[in-house]
Amino acid sequence: MTKITPPTQAEIEAAHARIKPYIHRTPVLTNQTLNEFAGAEIYFKCENFQKIGAFKARGGVNAVLSMTPEEQAKGVATHSSGNHAQAIAYAARVVGTKAYIVMPDNSPEVKVKAVQGYGAEVTFCKNTPEERQATLEQVVARTGAEFVHPYNDYRVIAGQATAAKELIEDAGVAFDTLMAPVGGGGLLSGTALSALYFSPNTTVVAGEPEGAADAILSFRSGQIERAPFVKTIADGLLTPLGDKTLPIILDHVSEILTVSDEEIIAAMRLIWERMKIIIEPSCAVPFAALLKNKEEFAGKKVGIILTGGNVDLGRLPF
Amino acid sequence: MTKITPPTQAEIEAAHARIKPYIHRTPVLTNQTLNEFAGAEIYFKCENFQKIGAFKARGGVNAVLSMTPEEQAKGVATHSSGNHAQAIAYAARVVGTKAYIVMPDNSPEVKVKAVQGYGAEVTFCKNTPEERQATLEQVVARTGAEFVHPYNDYRVIAGQATAAKELIEDAGVAFDTLMAPVGGGGLLSGTALSALYFSPNTTVVAGEPEGAADAILSFRSGQIERAPFVKTIADGLLTPLGDKTLPIILDHVSEILTVSDEEIIAAMRLIWERMKIIIEPSCAVPFAALLKNKEEFAGKKVGIILTGGNVDLGRLPF
Repeated sequence: MTKITPPTQAEIEAAHARIKPYIHRTPVLTNQTLNEFAGAEIYFKCENFQKIGAFKARGGVNAVLSMTPEEQAKGVATHSSGNHAQAIAYAARVVGTKAYIVMPDNSPEVKVKAVQGYGAEVTFCKNTPEERQATLEQVVARTGAEFVHPYNDYRVIAGQATAAKELIEDAGVAFDTLMAPVGGGGLLSGTALSALYFSPNTTVVAGEPEGAADAILSFRSGQIERAPFVKTIADGLLTPLGDKTLPIILDHVSEILTVSDEEIIAAMRLIWERMKIIIEPSCAVPFAALLKNKEEFAGKKVGIILTGGNVDLGRLPF
Repeated sequence: MTKITPPTQAEIEAAHARIKPYIHRTPVLTNQTLNEFAGAEIYFKCENFQKIGAFKARGGVNAVLSMTPEEQAKGVATHSSGNHAQAIAYAARVVGTKAYIVMPDNSPEVKVKAVQGYGAEVTFCKNTPEERQATLEQVVARTGAEFVHPYNDYRVIAGQATAAKELIEDAGVAFDTLMAPVGGGGLLSGTALSALYFSPNTTVVAGEPEGAADAILSFRSGQIERAPFVKTIADGLLTPLGDKTLPIILDHVSEILTVSDEEIIAAMRLIWERMKIIIEPSCAVPFAALLKNKEEFAGKKVGIILTGGNVDLGRLPF
């Protein structure tokens, strides 16, 4: 008997209806050359074309739209130097409230400007987990804003789940496998639940960088583990799992495959060159994992969520 | 009274029907941020997603499919180091015949491999117009293959015209202006004819690099002129107009706007960063021209043909 953890099917469907007016229904692209190269039939869900350039818009918007008007009025807060910061800033603008974003003081200027461009207030802090947490707590105490965690939040998980839901609806094929990268596990757990509810014969496989290999350890031990070391170009996947994402992943994900930075960069370059679309390194991890394990996916129908396209063009790995 | 030169409306419609099974109906993308930045309503026709990564597949396939079976059996020949070489190689494969491509011996290896990847036979020559022509004539004499000029050929012009035809059909708006870059003028003349036939109230404006400014001189004098100097990153736009493209451009194009390499690179980067798609420098020229002349396009509905996405990722200008 399958144990059901939240979010439920109804919650994911409600999230989708809620966020639809504010997100893009991103295209599903296929590429004959890459299919021949991989020996599989691949459907890429292009969340690099999503609002703010990444799937995180889904979870952020769902979380903020799920709040009561009173909660919304006090604003919304988070700590992030990446796509979640922009997602919360964008979501706050959607409902016409204030976003308070805590960012490390060494964040790239382009990311700070993007967040400020959505009208958010940025508070800088030293780049340690303790400082981020302490600064966030000060901001929340001062403003009364509601904290939205980047992934360990059922509203966020339900929002991220809508990417796989659309992929299943739009591809028009019976998927053998869905693939997503794993960092904190918000997208992966949402993807696993959407597969369970909307395409129950589909397995879910995650890709993880060797240089942030915590999820594969957690998957084995059943507890939240830390990576033995953190050093990877896939800078969106550095965080450990959370107590809400881990149980979903343990129950509904089949396998976690790891890849090296070299394999990530090669897969990223292949997608840039052949599909003419820009994806960020974290985003290439599942495709890299597929290419590394061709025999496992041979002839299969595979859906891959391309998670985002926010790269610094001045610092490309090729 | 409008003077009609070939290709006629019926010829463009026939070309479209002929090539449809072998080309992608590429998407038309819009981007809110770029619209706000430009102050216009822009519809990008994404030929960077076309077969071989560029619109040239249209003209090449139409030319080869327009030949008699006897002509096709002898093969098809051209000289090109760029997208036209791949287009002819691809078109020959479509009809199951041989392509003979004359390429300068300093062509990038990636381009040579791409052409050979379609099964074409490559003959190298020194990189001068005389050597290219002489080598091509030898190849044609030896094989009996039919030469398809990169742009000065009505079959090619009719093929390129189908990009604007699709853009007009798919965008669902009444365009004020269509924009295309100009090199030899195959795409520009085809675009002008499609506007004339399928959207007669739409003007056509070309973008040209300052570092290959021959078309603007030809447009003024009414004769084929050479650029005063050739030095630009837009390496797809170096050639002068031909005696078939010039008359169409004189009659049906409103204006040619020139832009610097700096402006081209900035426009290219903006599209990469905001739209998350890969376009080649030549392809950014019309958008650069629009940004340079914002007042002229203010509030207008503008269709821009993004011509291709074949860039060397190891040699990017940023």
